[in-house]
Formats: sequence, structure tokens, C-alpha cells
Amino acid sequence: MTTEIEELLKPLRLAVAEQGEIVKKLKESKAADIDITRAVAELKARKNVLENKIEELIPKESKIDRGKVEDLLKRRFFYDQSFAIYGGVNGLYDYGPMGCAMKANLLNEWRKFFILEEQMLEIDCSMLTPSPVLVASGHVARFSDFMVKDLKTGECFRADHLIEAHLEKLLQDKKLTEDKRAEIETYLRQVDNMSAKDMEEVIAKYNMKSPITNNDLTEPVAFNLMFATSIGPTGTIKGFLRPETAQGMFVNFKRLLEFNQGKLPFAAAQIGNSFRNEISPRSGLLRVREFTMSEIEHFVDPSDKSHPKFSNVENVEVLLYSAENQVTGQPPKSVKIGEAVKSGLINNETLGYFIARIYLFLTRCGVRKDKLRFRQHMSNEMAHYACDCWDAECHTSYGWVECVGCADRSCYDLTQHAQHSGVKLAAEKQLPHPKVIDVVEVQPDKGAIGKLFKQNAKVITSYLEKLTPEQVGELENKIKAAGDNEVELELESQKFNLKANLLTVKRYQKTVYVEEIVPSVIEPSFGIGRIMYTIWEHNFVVRDAQRTYLALPAVIAPYKCSVLPLSTNDEFKPFIKTLSSLLTNAGISHKVDDSSGSIGRRYARTDEIAIPFAITIDFDSLKEPNTVTLRERDSMQQIRLELNEVIKVVGDLADLKTSWSEVITRYPLFEHQTSTGKDE
Amino acid sequence: MTTEIEELLKPLRLAVAEQGEIVKKLKESKAADIDITRAVAELKARKNVLENKIEELIPKESKIDRGKVEDLLKRRFFYDQSFAIYGGVNGLYDYGPMGCAMKANLLNEWRKFFILEEQMLEIDCSMLTPSPVLVASGHVARFSDFMVKDLKTGECFRADHLIEAHLEKLLQDKKLTEDKRAEIETYLRQVDNMSAKDMEEVIAKYNMKSPITNNDLTEPVAFNLMFATSIGPTGTIKGFLRPETAQGMFVNFKRLLEFNQGKLPFAAAQIGNSFRNEISPRSGLLRVREFTMSEIEHFVDPSDKSHPKFSNVENVEVLLYSAENQVTGQPPKSVKIGEAVKSGLINNETLGYFIARIYLFLTRCGVRKDKLRFRQHMSNEMAHYACDCWDAECHTSYGWVECVGCADRSCYDLTQHAQHSGVKLAAEKQLPHPKVIDVVEVQPDKGAIGKLFKQNAKVITSYLEKLTPEQVGELENKIKAAGDNEVELELESQKFNLKANLLTVKRYQKTVYVEEIVPSVIEPSFGIGRIMYTIWEHNFVVRDAQRTYLALPAVIAPYKCSVLPLSTNDEFKPFIKTLSSLLTNAGISHKVDDSSGSIGRRYARTDEIAIPFAITIDFDSLKEPNTVTLRERDSMQQIRLELNEVIKVVGDLADLKTSWSEVITRYPLFEHQTSTGKDE
Repeated sequence: MTTEIEELLKPLRLAVAEQGEIVKKLKESKAADIDITRAVAELKARKNVLENKIEELIPKESKIDRGKVEDLLKRRFFYDQSFAIYGGVNGLYDYGPMGCAMKANLLNEWRKFFILEEQMLEIDCSMLTPSPVLVASGHVARFSDFMVKDLKTGECFRADHLIEAHLEKLLQDKKLTEDKRAEIETYLRQVDNMSAKDMEEVIAKYNMKSPITNNDLTEPVAFNLMFATSIGPTGTIKGFLRPETAQGMFVNFKRLLEFNQGKLPFAAAQIGNSFRNEISPRSGLLRVREFTMSEIEHFVDPSDKSHPKFSNVENVEVLLYSAENQVTGQPPKSVKIGEAVKSGLINNETLGYFIARIYLFLTRCGVRKDKLRFRQHMSNEMAHYACDCWDAECHTSYGWVECVGCADRSCYDLTQHAQHSGVKLAAEKQLPHPKVIDVVEVQPDKGAIGKLFKQNAKVITSYLEKLTPEQVGELENKIKAAGDNEVELELESQKFNLKANLLTVKRYQKTVYVEEIVPSVIEPSFGIGRIMYTIWEHNFVVRDAQRTYLALPAVIAPYKCSVLPLSTNDEFKPFIKTLSSLLTNAGISHKVDDSSGSIGRRYARTDEIAIPFAITIDFDSLKEPNTVTLRERDSMQQIRLELNEVIKVVGDLADLKTSWSEVITRYPLFEHQTSTGKDE
Repeated sequence: MTTEIEELLKPLRLAVAEQGEIVKKLKESKAADIDITRAVAELKARKNVLENKIEELIPKESKIDRGKVEDLLKRRFFYDQSFAIYGGVNGLYDYGPMGCAMKANLLNEWRKFFILEEQMLEIDCSMLTPSPVLVASGHVARFSDFMVKDLKTGECFRADHLIEAHLEKLLQDKKLTEDKRAEIETYLRQVDNMSAKDMEEVIAKYNMKSPITNNDLTEPVAFNLMFATSIGPTGTIKGFLRPETAQGMFVNFKRLLEFNQGKLPFAAAQIGNSFRNEISPRSGLLRVREFTMSEIEHFVDPSDKSHPKFSNVENVEVLLYSAENQVTGQPPKSVKIGEAVKSGLINNETLGYFIARIYLFLTRCGVRKDKLRFRQHMSNEMAHYACDCWDAECHTSYGWVECVGCADRSCYDLTQHAQHSGVKLAAEKQLPHPKVIDVVEVQPDKGAIGKLFKQNAKVITSYLEKLTPEQVGELENKIKAAGDNEVELELESQKFNLKANLLTVKRYQKTVYVEEIVPSVIEPSFGIGRIMYTIWEHNFVVRDAQRTYLALPAVIAPYKCSVLPLSTNDEFKPFIKTLSSLLTNAGISHKVDDSSGSIGRRYARTDEIAIPFAITIDFDSLKEPNTVTLRERDSMQQIRLELNEVIKVVGDLADLKTSWSEVITRYPLFEHQTSTGKDE
């Protein structure tokens, strides 16, 4: 960023820093919650002003024309709206042949890069999920947005979006009094923190109506974002489509640990679809109702979050946008992962390892390094159980978009599922030295208790067996104090009278070799659709001011190579067949374009769908030794080589075993009028 | 099959043949539907008797012990019930690390074998599907089973299964009179063809109750097997989880054709999950509520179903169980695909090509040739629009199981969606010679009609414009006959009086170069879960009468190789790390087992999870030149080779570029007491 621009941003950065300081002090002085919330909202608003200004100052020539990108993507069927011939459904998209091939390549790379590299345990769980699982995870209670409905048409709106849009429109009125403006701005800052009642008040106060029909609106109600269905014919098993793949890994923890022979750490991984019933999805592929995720749950001893391969990544330099930078209005800083962990900026080695690996993966697949940052969650946006969380954010025409989340979720999920299912979800850890411990336990006289209390006997015995050593002591004292009298117990709203002879207290010592621990979970979670959209924008190129194409890295390009005969002459056919089956046998995906368009037009067409290499067959190819030309998409350079060499060269280029710049040192450039693709 | 067994089967085969003849004659004589239906049911019953007898005669030693297979699969977490810690849900399963890795390998092979080889257009469509799409496909009306409910507990049963089980139980009564027995058998044969009313009668007649509680049952009602949900917050967009992936390809036909530059034939393909809300799923992985399919829709000109690569497969020999063989009680016959198409047994080349390719794919992935047959649908079981249909059936401990369907669905699906969506779904076909055609059309005088009929004008003009040439002629004659009088038209239940001056009839000639055709669809549809289960059973081996393992082909084995240090000595650690990263870089999935078990026990453990090759590191490995042993799972043979060779050898073995028998010609067998895995 130039000094000039920095000058413009300076006051805005200062405004953020000032407010950050206020929030900090309020927290230190343990001020009232409401005051802190308001100060945080103000801080957020100032951050927004700063970030909007930065967006505004991006020079026009480096901005992406989203219309052009989407035109190319839809025209060549990378993706499009689902069920379009029936009018389509908002938030549902289909990937066409090019999008689907790219997605398959991306997921394949992901499997190699994460699962194979770390020997993770990949699993594949049901999407249909019975309700109790999502009650335990908190999704049934909390996975919702507020919405309001048009009273007449029933159309729904996200309440926060509606309020924001309305207030922002009001602010555009030049004649607004200063007081009124300040009031509106105050509300605007609070939107994210408003309760249903707050929203109802604001809607009433400003007399907000449906933006479509101008009809009255209902009060805001929480709308759960999960798709509900019922499993089986009776209608009694309530279920949902999973909102994330993570829960499948948590509920399988016991079996996974067993598969790993009881040892920590280990990572589970899952690739699959999840579903969120967004209230009114817009923003194209960024906010959809059905989407592919790939998630990792790395289970680790909470007292040792070191990572054996950390030294491999400690010199990887990434753009970190720390919580501190955010509250002081500072820009993100480029930091080496090793230093960030050492200084405590990133909580632990394992979290740092994954941040570095995410960075390496994304940039390998075509995300631009200068448009990728890791933003740390501020304490107020982090889930209460998380101890540190960083989002990989990519800059697109929609602004900064979260593409990968990377959180240390501590032991929250396993604890929840253990409580709700009644199944122990813990690992055993070898103690460095065997430990002798004191055991105090109550042994109830089951026979006597049974006779005395009949159907209630089990309540009493199981209560007695679960007492902690302290509780045993208390009970023992009570009984002693009571002497021959009975001691009254209240269990499950009933009263029972116990006598000393119904139980024995045992005290003894035991040597233990292991301790039980509930592992922490470090969770990198990838939104595949968002990553794909980012890659498309980051690799969108306009050539000669008009021809648009996608310069995707070979490793994820839908096809690796195109085959273009110079004419539709029948003589070429057997040659094309041979070449095509050689490519197939070598596992190189390719597309034959033997249509009659000029070679220039056909190059432009294969560029559009991001094919990195093109083999052209001309009349010289038919003569011995059979030679072909090979063209590279981005440089438009061509070389001429023999048929039996080209398969190996393209294969190596596609697998990144060699580079184009290396290849052209071995084969002379082939100059020809058709080589530039301009001769249309 | 031995002659002895054939003798036992002879009368049963004859019984089928006799009944087959009766059905044929009834059809030829165009007998009443009810008579044909009854005769077909009897034919089916006789076929069942024959097939059950064949199953019964399978020698015990070649039968699979399903309990042992499932024990291994669950113990080593190939798969298990979903959400088991919450009690699980019937019909939902999770694949664990081994099942998931095998599934990924299987799908990868499928992609290479079908999509890459034929340059199919793979797409990836939404699972959430709005109702109109599934109304058009017929699923909303017809995708259902009949069920009955326990009147008190609400428990549901599939009506046909319940009736069958009840009647079969009655038949076991030795004291049954001949009349009664015959009556019950008659009903039993009709079960598949019963209407709700028929079922209600039988249930009442035999006073059937809930098999669990003996309570009364409701009358049978049709239960749609699709999972319903609503999309968006208003509840007005009714949707379902797709019951198959096919519809996504049909509704995208127009875009796919465009992508293929308007040319036929081409194939679309899709891999993804589908959902069926089975009433009471049993049979483990064979009948589940959520499953992965891979489907191909090959769109082809109905007048030319030849296939350019048919000559590649015409000599492939497969076991065909034709409709003719089925109605005459004959066993399946081994036939070359070329002959089967030539003789008309298989309807066309494209269908034959896919049957051969399905055979090659399944056997490559581990389905046993002698347990795979293609069964042709008989005319009564084929959908009315299909012109030929063959199921790839695999023999398992559940009997013959349909794993792949391969149907020529003619133009049914595209026609349905075109009608329901109002969007034309057709291809243009170049005519061999331009054709001059006569055009007759009515041009209404819109101004005059508008003045005269006001709001009804549009009904009239659009009626006139849509008339066929014949209808135009008729109308013209009527008007002529009427002279100066008016002609009465009845449209949309209203009457209109037309006069000659309101329209002009135009006749002219036009040259056309293309004709419109609605393509036929040939659909191979793979049930991935069923194929996996079959492969597990077909490759289940009991070694030394006790150790069980899976002899999966390397190409789909979860891991390609295991790494086993002979001892837990620290000296081995750097060596293992080097070896492991060499394997990872070569893309070879592997599992390190450095636990302290004996080497024999560890071999048994890697055999169980089907790892085809094991690299063992011993103290000799640490000395220069570093050598390791390589063990093959099925033969338990070992060779000794240098570290820098083993990666290449294992890689080639895993990719089927070489075979074990070839490798042992290059390296001498290494004899060692641990080599057999028996030294535990």
C-alpha cells in the first residue's frame, strides 16, 4: 500500500485503536455487560468503516469484474442454478462437467495433502442425523437466525439484514438531523447483538415494512437453519440433515480410538455434504443450502499440543490478522509460523501446523498469496469453549470471505456427547510413573436394601455407588452422628430412611498405571464451494482486453490437455484415436475438439475452460517421425516434439513433476502464426 | 454343476417351462389381464422354487459364513451402524477408515474406467429436490410400498413382507388340508401383484396381527419412500431428498448437450448419495436408507444405437440369464457380447457395450466371475417405457443381489421433463439431404380479433396458431361451407363465433436441414454399497481354519502397504520416517504398525484389513546397503530387496503395472520362519 493511501487510512486506524482501548479498559474494570457489548459494537462499526475504506481504495484495474467471471462460469457450465428448467431454487447449485472435474481434482489433492500425508482416519458418515445427536451438539437449540415474515404474502426475510438495509437507506437522506443520524448509527452498530425483542422495537420504531410489497411484518422469530425430516414410516424418529460433518467424527470417537490402538494424537477426516436452510440466500456460491465440506478433527492430549512435524513448517510465512491488530486498527502482518507459536500469538504447535498446511494447500491450488490472510477470532466472536480460532479468509469481489476455519475446540464436543449418550468418550494415558491412590467407596448391602425398598432399591444403590470420596465422608459422619437413628435421603423427589447396617464404607489403596483424559480437538474445516469460487476469481484473466479465461493450476484444472486436429480431414481420425487412448492409459484427462472452428478460436475455447496444455495435430504429424505441437495456456508458447514424448511431458507437467520453463529448455520454441491464438 | 444335481433340478425346470408356455399362450391369445397376471404369479412362484432349490444344493464348504464376515468388518471398522452411542438408527451405516478408503479407491477406479475412458460429462447436482421434478419423474405418485401399522404401538410393517411371513408360517402346519394349503399357496403367489384392497382382504381373512405384539393392524396404505422436507423458511417449497441421481442429469440435458456442442451421442455421469425411507430395513448394507450410487445416462439417437468401441468388447464372455431362460427354467448361459447383440438377445450395441464394461469393471474390483450374472428383466417386471433391461446380479449369502442395473429407458425421462417444465429437451440432427416441406398455417388478424373478443382474444389466436395442417384444412372447409355465416368454436368451455375475414390461411414451402429428435437414454446404475458388500464376501478367506482376512485386489485395498519394524527399538525410528515419507511422496497409502505385537500377529492384523503388501524392517535393514523384506498377503511369500527398489515395486504392484508372479522372477524368495505368519 502506498504512503498516500496509508495517510488516508491513518485517522480510521486511530479511531479503531481508541475504541479498542476503551473496550479493553471496560473489560479490565469488569464493567457491566451491557456497557461492554455496546463498546464492542462501536469497535466493530469502526473496524467496518476502516475495512470499507480499504476496499474502496483498491485501484480499479486490480478489481475483478464479477459479472464477467460469472458469465464465463455459467456459459461453459462450471456451475449453474439447480433445476433451472423448473424455475430453480435459491441457494441450490449444480456443478457442470468442468466444475465437477475441478472439484474432484481439488478433493483428490486434499486427500493426498492431508489424509495420506498425515495418515488420518477418513470416515464417511450418514447425513441423516437423529435429533438427540444435534441436541447434544447444541444445534437444535442454537443453530438459528431471526426472521420476519410479510404478513400478507408470507415472504420471509432475515431480520438483521432487513434492519440493516432499512437503516442504511435512512442514512442516505441528506436532510437528516444530527441527532437522528446519531441514533440510527447507534442502532446500526448494535444489529449483530440484538435480541428478538430489541429487533421488534427497532422495526416498530422505524415502521419497517416488507421491502418487496410494503406490507406489515411479523415480529422476529428464531428460525432453525437445519432441514428437518422424519426417519422411518412412523414419524416418531425426528431427524435433520447434518449442518456439518464434524458430529459424525465425534460420535465415532470410541471406535476411531480403538482403530488407532488406543493411542493419541490422531486425526479423523471427512469429506461430504452438509445442509443449511438459509432464510434468503444470495451471494451466489458463497451462501448456499447444500454444500461440500472437508473437515479434520485432530484429537490431542490437552496437556501436550506439540506436533512432531512442526519443524517442517516453522519457516512458512503467512499473513496473520491477529485480534490485537484488529482492535488497534493495524493491518495484518506477515509472520513465520514458528515465531507466531513461540510468541504465543498462535496458541499451540498443532494449531500452528495446521494453519501453515492450510496456507500451503490453498496456494498450491490457486489461491493468491496476496489475497489470503488468517484472521484470529476476537474473544467476543469465539465460541465460549474454544481457546483459539483462526479463519483463512480470501479476498474476492464480495470482500474477505471465510474459506477455512481452524479452531482449537478444547474438549467441548466429546464432553457433550459423553453426557448425552451416557457413553464414556475418553482416552487412557500412560502415567510416567505408576501412582498409588486412596480409594474410598461405599458398598451397599444390596439384598437388605432390596427387601426394604423394593422397586426403589436401584435408585438408592446406584446413588451410593456414584458418591465421591468427599460425599462418602459426609454420609459416614451423618450416619455416625445419627447413632441408632435413621438418616434421611432425598432422591428423585422421594425420601428414604437409611440405617448404618445397610452399607459398608471401604478404604483401600490402589496402584494405577494410566489416567483418563478427554482429548482436545483441533478442527480445520474447509468450505469446498467457497474455495472453488475464490480460485475462479483469483485466476480469472482477460487477455487482449476481451478474451476471458481461467488460468487454473494444472493440478486442479478440469482437463489436463486438449487435442486439436488442425482440420476435420478424415486422415486425422486414426491419429486422434491413438493419441486419445495413449493419454487415457496414462491417466491424463483430456478433451478432443475436432470441430471446424479456426485453431485460434479453439485455443480460446480450451483456454476458457482452463485446459493448461493443448496438443495440436497438423499435416506434419502424419509423417514419420510423428510430431505434434504442445501449447502452454498462459504463455501461449509452443514446442514441437515427437508423439512418444508428448504423453510423458504432459503427464509430468500435470503432476507438477516438471514446469513449463524447464520443458522449454529441452525443446526449442516453435514459432507459428497460430501459436498466439490471435489469428481468428 | 454335477449331473446328479441336474437330475434333482430337472422336474423343477420342467415345471417352470410348462408355466412359461402357458403365460406365452395367454399373451398370444390376448387373454384377460387378470388371467395373465395370475399365470405370471404362478410362473414366478415356480421360478422361486427352482432358485431356492439351487441355493439349497450349494455345497456347504463353498458357503460364506456371514456372521464371520460381519464380525471382521465391524471389528476392524470397515463399517458399523451410525450413531451407535445413541442407540443407532435402522438402515443408516457409517464407513470407518478401512471402508472409506476402499470406497474412495473404488470410486476413483470407476471414474477412470468409465468417465475418463469415455470422456463422459460428470456433473454434481443437488440432493435436495423440489417436488415438481419428482412429480414429472413419477416418484411422487408411484415410489411407494404398502405398509400396515400396529393399531396400539404404531409400529410399521411392509404389508407384503408381513403377509408372506404369515402365510409361510401357516404352511408349516402339517395338519393343513389339501384345499387350505392350495388356497394359501395361491395367495402367496399373488403377493407381489396385490392391490391395497387385495391385501386388506387377505389380512382380514387370515386374521393377521402384529408379529411383535399381536395387536390389530390398520388397513394397508401406500407409503412414499422419499424423505420429505421443506426448502426455505416459508414452508411453501416442498422438497424431497433425491431417490436416485438420474433426475439431475435429465433436468440438465439442455446444458449438457450445449456443452457437447449439440452433438449426440454423449454420456453424463454422476456419483452421489440418494435416500430411500425404507419401511423396516433389514439385510445389513443391502437395504439402507442413505446410499452412494454412480449412474450414467448415455444419450443416443434412437435410430442408431451402434457404439464406436463395440469391437473392443465383442469377445467378452458373460453369464447371461435371459428372460427366455427364466421362463423355460434353463440356467444362465455364457455368451460372447458380440453374439448376444447379433442374435438380438441384447437389444443393441450400446447396451451390449455397457454390459461388457460393467462385467470388466466388477471383476477387476474383486467380484468373482462365477458369482456374477446378468439377468434380463421379463416383460412383466420392466417399466412400460423401457425396451430392454439387464441387472448385474452377484451371488452372496443373501442369494442373488442386484448390484448394477443397465436399462434402455428409451425417451421416457426427457419427454416427461419436457412436458412438465415446458422446456424443449431435444437434439437437432443434420438431415442427410435438405428436405423441402409444405407448410400450412393460419395467420389470425390479431387487431380485428382483439377488438371483437377483448380479454378472450389471446385464447383464440393461440388456438389458431397451434393448429396442425389437417386441422387448418378442416377449419377452412367449415368456413367455406358456412359462407357468410359464422362458424362456432368451443374453447375452454366458451363459445366463439368466427368469420372468414378474421384469418388468412398461408401455404408455402420451406427447406429444412435438421430434424428434431428426443434421444434415447441407456442407463447403467451402480449401487456402490452393494458392490462393496459383495466384494467383501467374495474375497473373504479363512486361513488355517481360524484366521480370517480379506483378499481384496490391490487396486481397491484400503492401504496398499504396511510398514512393520521387527522391534520397537528406537534405532528403527528414523528409518521408518524415511520409508514412510518416500511412500507418501510416491502416492502409496500405507499404515505403520510399530506396536509391540509379534511379527506374526501383526501380519495377521494387516491381512485382516486387506493390505496386500507388507514391508518389514529388521536389523539388517539398518546396514548398508539398506534392504527390507516385502511380503505378499495371499501367498505369504517374501522377497528381500533394497530400500530404493521397494517403492517402485510396491507402486507398480498397486497400480497393476506388474504382478507378484512377475516380481518373484526378479527377486529370490526369502525364506524365514516369520514369513508364514504362523509363528505367533
